[in-house]
Amino acid sequence: MNTFGQLLRLTDFGESHGKAIGGVLDGLPAGLHVNLNSVQEALDRRRPGSSPQVSARREPDKVQWLSGLTDEGVTIGSPIAFLIPNTDAHPDDYKDMEGICRPGHADFTWRMKYGVPLPTGGGYASARRTAACVVAGELAQQFLRTHNIEVRAFLSSMGPYNLKNPLKLFPEKEDIYASSVRCPDVTTSHTMQEYLEHIKKQHDSIGGAVSFIAMGVPIGLGEPPYGKLSTRLAEAMMSINAVKGVMIGDVTSPEHLAGTTGSAYVDQWTVAGGTAYHSTNHAGGIEGGISNGEQILLTVGFKPTPTIGRPLQALTDDFTLSPLYAKGRHDPCVAIRGVSVVEAMGSLVLADAVLLKAAYK
Amino acid sequence: MNTFGQLLRLTDFGESHGKAIGGVLDGLPAGLHVNLNSVQEALDRRRPGSSPQVSARREPDKVQWLSGLTDEGVTIGSPIAFLIPNTDAHPDDYKDMEGICRPGHADFTWRMKYGVPLPTGGGYASARRTAACVVAGELAQQFLRTHNIEVRAFLSSMGPYNLKNPLKLFPEKEDIYASSVRCPDVTTSHTMQEYLEHIKKQHDSIGGAVSFIAMGVPIGLGEPPYGKLSTRLAEAMMSINAVKGVMIGDVTSPEHLAGTTGSAYVDQWTVAGGTAYHSTNHAGGIEGGISNGEQILLTVGFKPTPTIGRPLQALTDDFTLSPLYAKGRHDPCVAIRGVSVVEAMGSLVLADAVLLKAAYK
Amino acid sequence: MNTFGQLLRLTDFGESHGKAIGGVLDGLPAGLHVNLNSVQEALDRRRPGSSPQVSARREPDKVQWLSGLTDEGVTIGSPIAFLIPNTDAHPDDYKDMEGICRPGHADFTWRMKYGVPLPTGGGYASARRTAACVVAGELAQQFLRTHNIEVRAFLSSMGPYNLKNPLKLFPEKEDIYASSVRCPDVTTSHTMQEYLEHIKKQHDSIGGAVSFIAMGVPIGLGEPPYGKLSTRLAEAMMSINAVKGVMIGDVTSPEHLAGTTGSAYVDQWTVAGGTAYHSTNHAGGIEGGISNGEQILLTVGFKPTPTIGRPLQALTDDFTLSPLYAKGRHDPCVAIRGVSVVEAMGSLVLADAVLLKAAYK
Amino acid sequence: MNTFGQLLRLTDFGESHGKAIGGVLDGLPAGLHVNLNSVQEALDRRRPGSSPQVSARREPDKVQWLSGLTDEGVTIGSPIAFLIPNTDAHPDDYKDMEGICRPGHADFTWRMKYGVPLPTGGGYASARRTAACVVAGELAQQFLRTHNIEVRAFLSSMGPYNLKNPLKLFPEKEDIYASSVRCPDVTTSHTMQEYLEHIKKQHDSIGGAVSFIAMGVPIGLGEPPYGKLSTRLAEAMMSINAVKGVMIGDVTSPEHLAGTTGSAYVDQWTVAGGTAYHSTNHAGGIEGGISNGEQILLTVGFKPTPTIGRPLQALTDDFTLSPLYAKGRHDPCVAIRGVSVVEAMGSLVLADAVLLKAAYK
Repeated sequence: MNTFGQLLRLTDFGESHGKAIGGVLDGLPAGLHVNLNSVQEALDRRRPGSSPQVSARREPDKVQWLSGLTDEGVTIGSPIAFLIPNTDAHPDDYKDMEGICRPGHADFTWRMKYGVPLPTGGGYASARRTAACVVAGELAQQFLRTHNIEVRAFLSSMGPYNLKNPLKLFPEKEDIYASSVRCPDVTTSHTMQEYLEHIKKQHDSIGGAVSFIAMGVPIGLGEPPYGKLSTRLAEAMMSINAVKGVMIGDVTSPEHLAGTTGSAYVDQWTVAGGTAYHSTNHAGGIEGGISNGEQILLTVGFKPTPTIGRPLQALTDDFTLSPLYAKGRHDPCVAIRGVSVVEAMGSLVLADAVLLKAAYK
Repeated sequence: MNTFGQLLRLTDFGESHGKAIGGVLDGLPAGLHVNLNSVQEALDRRRPGSSPQVSARREPDKVQWLSGLTDEGVTIGSPIAFLIPNTDAHPDDYKDMEGICRPGHADFTWRMKYGVPLPTGGGYASARRTAACVVAGELAQQFLRTHNIEVRAFLSSMGPYNLKNPLKLFPEKEDIYASSVRCPDVTTSHTMQEYLEHIKKQHDSIGGAVSFIAMGVPIGLGEPPYGKLSTRLAEAMMSINAVKGVMIGDVTSPEHLAGTTGSAYVDQWTVAGGTAYHSTNHAGGIEGGISNGEQILLTVGFKPTPTIGRPLQALTDDFTLSPLYAKGRHDPCVAIRGVSVVEAMGSLVLADAVLLKAAYK
Repeated sequence: MNTFGQLLRLTDFGESHGKAIGGVLDGLPAGLHVNLNSVQEALDRRRPGSSPQVSARREPDKVQWLSGLTDEGVTIGSPIAFLIPNTDAHPDDYKDMEGICRPGHADFTWRMKYGVPLPTGGGYASARRTAACVVAGELAQQFLRTHNIEVRAFLSSMGPYNLKNPLKLFPEKEDIYASSVRCPDVTTSHTMQEYLEHIKKQHDSIGGAVSFIAMGVPIGLGEPPYGKLSTRLAEAMMSINAVKGVMIGDVTSPEHLAGTTGSAYVDQWTVAGGTAYHSTNHAGGIEGGISNGEQILLTVGFKPTPTIGRPLQALTDDFTLSPLYAKGRHDPCVAIRGVSVVEAMGSLVLADAVLLKAAYK
Repeated sequence: MNTFGQLLRLTDFGESHGKAIGGVLDGLPAGLHVNLNSVQEALDRRRPGSSPQVSARREPDKVQWLSGLTDEGVTIGSPIAFLIPNTDAHPDDYKDMEGICRPGHADFTWRMKYGVPLPTGGGYASARRTAACVVAGELAQQFLRTHNIEVRAFLSSMGPYNLKNPLKLFPEKEDIYASSVRCPDVTTSHTMQEYLEHIKKQHDSIGGAVSFIAMGVPIGLGEPPYGKLSTRLAEAMMSINAVKGVMIGDVTSPEHLAGTTGSAYVDQWTVAGGTAYHSTNHAGGIEGGISNGEQILLTVGFKPTPTIGRPLQALTDDFTLSPLYAKGRHDPCVAIRGVSVVEAMGSLVLADAVLLKAAYK
């Protein structure tokens, strides 16, 4: 199932160490002037090696546009196809992993499901696939801006370090991406960077939490019950590699929700200037599955990558165990690169919801 | 968007105080012997008034079968349609709420989106709709049992009270539903009941967390990337009324994930008896979006209902505030009834995934 | 696969001699004032026994509305569910057909596909299912009228009798349904009626062709390539029981198309009054899969029903042949009743296309 | 809407004179050994310039594989992406058509729908897009062969010349493609070639009819009512450029169906050797929307291309008429190239239906 979305649909493809990855985005209205440089910049921000903290693979990741745009970058209503060639593939790094299944990876489940080994470096199961999401997501963002919707994603937690009230922020993008860990608070970012160095020295990896915020979202996005805005956002986020949890609103966990009373949680009305808004936003801008005019708030949890520098036991074809020392190039904290992808997937969901709302208007 | 699923598809309908709610389930293989009494029992377990802790609406909730089954309850391959008549509708309870929007409810977003008021008692936005999910989910469970898959859902947290290591349990259904709060541990259940009495006396409400566990799930369910098993489960859970968060695996929150190292998280291999399994199950039985043969584990967070006995301000049509005293019948903890719905939606996802796996064999 | 449409979606269900048939229509914009009497009238026009020429089953076919409408018949944005109870089911008529497969029916393919016998009278494979399409189609027509789109369907051919240039007509609905064979030309209708009497006396059946015309269709409906307006119309028509062919435009067959030159076929421009239109409409109002502002024209071919009064050989469970004398109530020309269904399915496609166009604005 | 299929899904893209066209095929089971040379050969058979009768564009049309296959051509379960670069694009041929809408083309509808001009040479509306269908269709055919299903398509009518009983044939592929008009009967092929020369000299174009036959199709393909095999085939065929009609079975037109009696049409049973088959196959192998074990038979009608060498009037931006002399390279009979595409689209439908059947088994 490689297509996401209903009216704005991304279809993606490509193995980590194959010829190229890419995608096809269909459903963006015709006549949109796309800033193609911004798309490349979005891709650069996600790129392996774009910060000292992420894996050392050195892909230029130059997007090639194949269809759907005029030479000037205007959409023409037909599908927008794009490629990102793989130029720095080092399949040899993975040679001694052939025939074995690493713990915590898709190697085992893929092999059992498809009956063929997962290709070198993770194939289509690799997070490299998400570069296509970033390209499509930036196109969606440019469409959202024509509707005055702005989105942000940033790292809010890593290791023991958490941004305070991250969902009350709406940082500048430059501040997010100026941080090598994608955390817009300079002090926290610095602490996280140091912590990450420590983790790397430990030959370990660490999880992360990413905040997503959308501003300017009109009332009425979302199609209950199975196309609720919250449903689509959860679906989008859970499709991202390494994501294991999604929380809508400012309550941090299911247990935390369980410990919250209605009187504390309910977002009460304020009336001012002839209009109404909510005094608080615990619900994260979604009530009854439909946007209520407040900021959309959610938090996404990324697991720590299972590729660590310490010896693990891998499973061989004949069901014995074999020591595994990870080679290849790996992120100690995949959530960092996940920031771009959360931003992208959230944008795709919102853009799709904007189109759906227009249909029923 | 009132249809859920890809090969096994539930289409539902019905307003809370309308003539009936119901659903159409298509895609269940022909020749399945359905125990229709068990379906009614599942519905009884969800029913308002089925425990002292849930709202006092007294619906018999008798399911009527319209199509797709022989008189003996065998599926024939055509869509299974069913009705649950509304017999205890008290729309008058909601008369003085006409023209106002309660805080925290779908009233406002619905009205703004559709341009018409949300019908009395929540209409299709009411959790009453989920009775149809329970009927369909029990059919899915009976299908899953023919594949030796068993599922459980139960309340694991309410207020300050949490089951210890809930995802290590696999309680008997009788023990879950013997508890009026759907918590299988007798002591915790008792404490929660007392706490709920306290909350009711405070004219307040409380959130809850529900654990979902599936046993016997074969390796290979899930269709990455956009049909990952985790993606579909998150989508299913987020479609349930009042759900605001989903965590896959045993890590309790995005922040908790952020604080976890790879060396602590990775589920290592154990080899025994000529086969391999995982020593731990932090990943909740899903790696790379595909089931890995371990138990599927997830936790769903329900917000506290915004309908509380304390005065709140409602929004009127002319954007003024008006005091609101909730009448009608309401659950102080919607997560309790949510237990049946989590069980149902999880079953629908797994059954759909079983069919998809068979297609690609 | 019991759901049709993308943004306006009909889900239907029900066996011919079961408790009820019905449907759920989702996606009709909120605030539409529906004339429920007109829906019943549309259903009456399709009803078995509504003309001397169709089968003698005497169902009142009263539609019951379950959800999605106010008491005044205004749509509220939630799914519109409806039931048509089966009150004149005579399953005993089919008793001696148990365990046998009639030639030309779905009995054999259903039994082999699903592994269970097709229920009495055809079950969900019976054309009775299409009553749900007629209900939904009339709702779609009322929506289309708010966009100034009007549709017509009528019988244009039966036996050796053909309306001359049927696609140049746009008859009044009353004139169509005043004819017991649904042919708006009084003389042709009379001839067809006599012919049908003759066919009945021969204990035979006869095929038919139905013309569909839509007027007022704006330029721009259809989503190429796989959602072309022509694609959706063909899909819709081919889902109708007994339909075996669809021709878009005024060319009557594939062979006829093969014999036509480009110079004769091309619809040339005429400019008048500051606007442009086509001098001819061979293309049936669709160019490049998109409506071009002219009338949508298509012709649907219905096979003759295989249930005839002459002895046929039926197939038994042990693969022997057994003489079959059809009992039950049957139409000698299913195309007559098909007229209502073609009108309905065409309306559903156009309404869906109108919504999709609005989305991409 | 650029994705076709349910479990086997083709997503395509690309403008006629853009950088490349291509597609992504998802859902082909893993472990299938694909003969990539055969795919290239299928593409060669469709290629412009592959016979003297089709347009003179000289594209090498070399398919480039981007993902989803091992180096040995084995499917690995991830999406198969492929490109066909445009190397012989001559956009200048179309320069003087800028700002005008040709009659009978998608120029006008596209411009009105999307608000931007259709790119040079037809853009995504060009039949060049169907090269991607041919690549995907050949992959589907190779999958079908592992299920012992074989398909054929060939030209059965052009101008006044028709193959006799074309649906009783099952010609060798070599014989079809040895004919420059894709007609397997040598004499008819020769006559058609001469006729086509005549049409070219007349500066005109001509329509065509293509027969599609599938052999070895198991009983039980098709998912009624909206996923009937006949429905999906009609949908697939109507998505092909220039197709205006589809007939299932051996009856040639809606009028012809209208003139057929049930006693003549019904395919009666024959029992022999402990099994049952049909004595005739008027129904084209589909009863009740499900394959019945006989050959699948259908006929597709292609309109004559509106690009002819005679002067036509084009519509300008300011709604005046301007003489149009077609330049560029055009097929006098697009049905010839359509043969490959009919073969491909039919194969995609059957392969998808095989997967769906396995799911519900």
